[in-house]
Amino acid sequence: MAYRVAVLGASGYTGGELLRILALHPEAEVVVATSREYAGKPIHFVHFNLRGWYRGLRFSPFSVDAILKKEVDVVFSALPHGVGLEYTKTFYESGLTVVDLSADYRLKDPEAYKRWYGFEHPYPDLLEKAVYGLPELHRDELKGAKLIASPGCNATAAILALAPLVKEGLIDTNRVLVDVKVGSSEGGSKPTRGSHHPERENAIRPYEPRGHRHAAEAEQELSRLAGAPVRVSLVPHAVSAIRGALASGHAWLTREADEKMLLRVYASFYRESPFVRIVYGTPPGYPDPKYVAGSNYADVGFAVEERLGRVTGFAAIDNLVKGAAGQAVQAWNLAAGLPEDTGLRILPLKPA
Amino acid sequence: MAYRVAVLGASGYTGGELLRILALHPEAEVVVATSREYAGKPIHFVHFNLRGWYRGLRFSPFSVDAILKKEVDVVFSALPHGVGLEYTKTFYESGLTVVDLSADYRLKDPEAYKRWYGFEHPYPDLLEKAVYGLPELHRDELKGAKLIASPGCNATAAILALAPLVKEGLIDTNRVLVDVKVGSSEGGSKPTRGSHHPERENAIRPYEPRGHRHAAEAEQELSRLAGAPVRVSLVPHAVSAIRGALASGHAWLTREADEKMLLRVYASFYRESPFVRIVYGTPPGYPDPKYVAGSNYADVGFAVEERLGRVTGFAAIDNLVKGAAGQAVQAWNLAAGLPEDTGLRILPLKPA
Amino acid sequence: MAYRVAVLGASGYTGGELLRILALHPEAEVVVATSREYAGKPIHFVHFNLRGWYRGLRFSPFSVDAILKKEVDVVFSALPHGVGLEYTKTFYESGLTVVDLSADYRLKDPEAYKRWYGFEHPYPDLLEKAVYGLPELHRDELKGAKLIASPGCNATAAILALAPLVKEGLIDTNRVLVDVKVGSSEGGSKPTRGSHHPERENAIRPYEPRGHRHAAEAEQELSRLAGAPVRVSLVPHAVSAIRGALASGHAWLTREADEKMLLRVYASFYRESPFVRIVYGTPPGYPDPKYVAGSNYADVGFAVEERLGRVTGFAAIDNLVKGAAGQAVQAWNLAAGLPEDTGLRILPLKPA
Amino acid sequence: MAYRVAVLGASGYTGGELLRILALHPEAEVVVATSREYAGKPIHFVHFNLRGWYRGLRFSPFSVDAILKKEVDVVFSALPHGVGLEYTKTFYESGLTVVDLSADYRLKDPEAYKRWYGFEHPYPDLLEKAVYGLPELHRDELKGAKLIASPGCNATAAILALAPLVKEGLIDTNRVLVDVKVGSSEGGSKPTRGSHHPERENAIRPYEPRGHRHAAEAEQELSRLAGAPVRVSLVPHAVSAIRGALASGHAWLTREADEKMLLRVYASFYRESPFVRIVYGTPPGYPDPKYVAGSNYADVGFAVEERLGRVTGFAAIDNLVKGAAGQAVQAWNLAAGLPEDTGLRILPLKPA
Repeated sequence: MAYRVAVLGASGYTGGELLRILALHPEAEVVVATSREYAGKPIHFVHFNLRGWYRGLRFSPFSVDAILKKEVDVVFSALPHGVGLEYTKTFYESGLTVVDLSADYRLKDPEAYKRWYGFEHPYPDLLEKAVYGLPELHRDELKGAKLIASPGCNATAAILALAPLVKEGLIDTNRVLVDVKVGSSEGGSKPTRGSHHPERENAIRPYEPRGHRHAAEAEQELSRLAGAPVRVSLVPHAVSAIRGALASGHAWLTREADEKMLLRVYASFYRESPFVRIVYGTPPGYPDPKYVAGSNYADVGFAVEERLGRVTGFAAIDNLVKGAAGQAVQAWNLAAGLPEDTGLRILPLKPA
Repeated sequence: MAYRVAVLGASGYTGGELLRILALHPEAEVVVATSREYAGKPIHFVHFNLRGWYRGLRFSPFSVDAILKKEVDVVFSALPHGVGLEYTKTFYESGLTVVDLSADYRLKDPEAYKRWYGFEHPYPDLLEKAVYGLPELHRDELKGAKLIASPGCNATAAILALAPLVKEGLIDTNRVLVDVKVGSSEGGSKPTRGSHHPERENAIRPYEPRGHRHAAEAEQELSRLAGAPVRVSLVPHAVSAIRGALASGHAWLTREADEKMLLRVYASFYRESPFVRIVYGTPPGYPDPKYVAGSNYADVGFAVEERLGRVTGFAAIDNLVKGAAGQAVQAWNLAAGLPEDTGLRILPLKPA
Repeated sequence: MAYRVAVLGASGYTGGELLRILALHPEAEVVVATSREYAGKPIHFVHFNLRGWYRGLRFSPFSVDAILKKEVDVVFSALPHGVGLEYTKTFYESGLTVVDLSADYRLKDPEAYKRWYGFEHPYPDLLEKAVYGLPELHRDELKGAKLIASPGCNATAAILALAPLVKEGLIDTNRVLVDVKVGSSEGGSKPTRGSHHPERENAIRPYEPRGHRHAAEAEQELSRLAGAPVRVSLVPHAVSAIRGALASGHAWLTREADEKMLLRVYASFYRESPFVRIVYGTPPGYPDPKYVAGSNYADVGFAVEERLGRVTGFAAIDNLVKGAAGQAVQAWNLAAGLPEDTGLRILPLKPA
Repeated sequence: MAYRVAVLGASGYTGGELLRILALHPEAEVVVATSREYAGKPIHFVHFNLRGWYRGLRFSPFSVDAILKKEVDVVFSALPHGVGLEYTKTFYESGLTVVDLSADYRLKDPEAYKRWYGFEHPYPDLLEKAVYGLPELHRDELKGAKLIASPGCNATAAILALAPLVKEGLIDTNRVLVDVKVGSSEGGSKPTRGSHHPERENAIRPYEPRGHRHAAEAEQELSRLAGAPVRVSLVPHAVSAIRGALASGHAWLTREADEKMLLRVYASFYRESPFVRIVYGTPPGYPDPKYVAGSNYADVGFAVEERLGRVTGFAAIDNLVKGAAGQAVQAWNLAAGLPEDTGLRILPLKPA
């Protein structure tokens, strides 16, 4: 009695990760996988890792009618920002559960779409209905949710790194600098000059250092936690890895706090969260996305420079899993009333 | 009613992979994990990926008595060649199932141990009893086996690349050159000058090019298949990856054969083998260990240069999984009468 | 009184390397650098490494007249195979020295162009006049040469690895298998699906394993040395590095030979060659392109498996330098009567 | 009439880079290269890249007398912090020019050695005499200097990224966070668990996030520029590259400033500095150490997030060259009255 699932934009990296995870999800059956470019091809034509799986399925062109006719229960949309807006609305209004991995429903403030994404959001009412799909902050709201806005990868890492500090009012919320380091898969599956291997490998390169738009999500969620405006400057850097994002959330303490106290704060904040692991005091000492790759874990830690009253919260995730497909499944599990880790008991590799 | 399992040498890479796989194996419970260096430490002290798992277990010093007292059913030994020989004998004779991941029981000919490993094998009778744990060649013998010699990683790749060609008598068995490319994890978890990151990264470096001892296994197994001596020259090269081994088995055809015919030969040879996937005719065209990493798959393919009558069989594996821990579990599954893929339904990542 | 130089196809990787080397060449002044795509842009717009250099020069569209009008003495052509054929002919016939880095003049046999490159060569007479620009084999012919066919990178490595063995008649020339491992820059500067960083990094992937066309050059040159036909099967593999090619030339000995004897054979063969360094008996034991990157060196070595009479010759080069731009400058130096290493005293880095 | 040079600690990475650069320095002749571990071995035994160079030289054990007897003019010391202190003092007092690449003479305040390095500095008078060897800030003082304290790599990057902003009083000097990303060579040539390739590759890992001691140098130099105390929090992260350090110096503006204005500020500050290249407005947009690797360049840039008044100064260097050996030679050139770029006209590679 599995849920019937459609994956939109199934040939990209996020789509591929959804297919990888759902292939072994005991309550899901993928019945539609759309791709404009690869319509008609078998899944493994693109996702070489899935050779031998999804034997009965091929990529299909996108069609609302076809999906509705397939009696789909859940739609995971990995379509680009703006592209799927109409369709996700239709599916939602037709009673399907929609998990949208684009930014289309993440921000509550319609104005923010103009500022950060350059378009006027056509359905402000849906923004109110959508639940921001970060289970660590919205576990209760997600239960029974029908429209889930799955968070951005940098936003996920930034929020998880800083949430406990903000919640406890420990930091100056006017001076928060999240320096993020990300692997190349964050740029998606489309080749560009900058993603060409000889140019991308060994890179240590700022991108969008004038402020990345995932800051909008981080500000929204952290402000909610603080009960007051939090200003977040988010500066990503492309580094040499395929998967992985590490957020180093730098801030200044507003009152004295040592690491022992922070350990209690972090541990307490994430007590109910099965996918957050606190890294403190044992090797490797601090979170490193290398050791969560392929899994839905977020490894979280912190450090204090007492001399200057500076604190840094760290969060390490796999940008395609906890930063995208895994988190989407995690949120949907909650929405569907399934155990939060259904289909997500996937262990990271070491070494990897 | 799970089997009680001991992992010997559990803090190395192969040991870590055994722990990763067995953590989710529904019929196994790891009750002992030995490590001289890390005795007393929690598992995640070494295997950062397993943080949150094995909460009740710590590394323990090796002790035959302690293991016997724990009522262990199966011993997976990842101790170095020669080191565990006595103990595995004891466990075997005490009625436990032994899966030895070292070379100690791989070769049938006691003389070969002198030639390739530099020691006189003390238990030639056990060599006869041991089953070479390559399920693709010994599936029937493995059923009920109590002493399993788990193959070397380069040997696994070399054999899987060439077995169908040898079986069909298609190649000149006096001129077989297996050029293997391997990632850095093949060298184990101990830092050396050559494994120091600045020296190892970007390397393309022959090692043991005068002939690697995994050739002994390949010759043994391929000769058995051919019913006549096969000579294998095996030349590994260290390349820049962490996991992965690609064997390019170069040989010359003894009669005309095109790729279409070879496709039938390979497909037929591996028909019963759930972990071998034939890569032919769709992207990426040929096997690449990148797309099996973390899984127990062996991707196998081939190419013919008709002009010269040269054929190359390819096999891509994760050296730590199909080349070590995964294959050991696969073989043990068969020995224990479990479905061959129990605990091994782990999908590789892409990209990764 | 420097030579006036034009670089055709100057925005690609080979073109960039020519510019890097010629920037410090005391006898060369680059006065033209053509690029269709980047015409009008400064050099550092593409070659970020050259920021601060070539301040007076910009990329220009290709034009025969413009080049002739600039009173150019030497043309280095990094245009793709076939594209520059007419122009290089014109320049040659106008009295300029032409160093062509494409395959257009490498093969002596016009038929071979049909077989390997799929076109009928329009100027078979020029094929005779062209000198194959491998100084280690054609040092004397290069003196005063006006039309130089600069060798392919895989061919360079394959030939340097095997030439001494072939010259001495030590190997069975019917069974020669050159397994080459190459970095991603060999594919050029144009992004493709296969060169996309998440797909290319960590790859260990055969390409053109049915026989790579650089085999044609290797057969031509080695046959010349042997005084009899040599058959070369050349199988490249993409591995995870940006620069570097290692050729492992596997063959079987026709008479007994140990490594001591081979050391003499190799040392003697390359006695006059300042850019060939024999690697034997000291760390790292065998050639590794990692330690020649950025330089014009070819590190050459060998290993014998006495048990089987198998020998492997190794050659490690930087595919963009000794495999392309550096070798072109080296050959031109000889043609111009300059010291062979003029402008090429560039040391490789370690670590790198 | 070259200067006679001794390199102390010549078998490490910094020592190797000194040898690489000095091999082609027209005014230097290396007559001593000390190494405890490799005494008696040829240079290329360790520095494989230098095979064929330094034919007359071997590593020698360290000996003050031997060095003085060799009539050495200049000593470059790459010995570890504290180890060489006595010797460099002796050489200095014997009239030799000393360029010390350790931290032994970098800090002016003797107290700082207790705080940051854990030892009492025995020669506070020498701290006053030593010149901090950052030519971009101390060009005039370096002329004729006899005791040069060559800066730390992270300090170099941090200072170069922020100096113009601090000099102009543009930022809040109480809230400066320098997030540095560094390659694996920064850890030196000695293998450790953390530098083992399978553990280090793909890492994105904070180290010493409680405040790295290079902050002491950055605070000293930036405070001098500001004419008031500047507080610098320096947080390095190990990322996956061999060479390279990128400092992202995050700060908040004290008055309005746009990027156009900053371009003038940076360009003006570095007008006389041949090794600083401003990256702004052309690809790749911002500094990336990838494009300076192997060279003495520092690529410098900046970005403003106007919304929040946040500014980031970037500096990209090769940690072993501009961050160590290259800068040491640059400073010595000035001290010796040679053109600043003597021996340093080495171009970075692209791709690399």
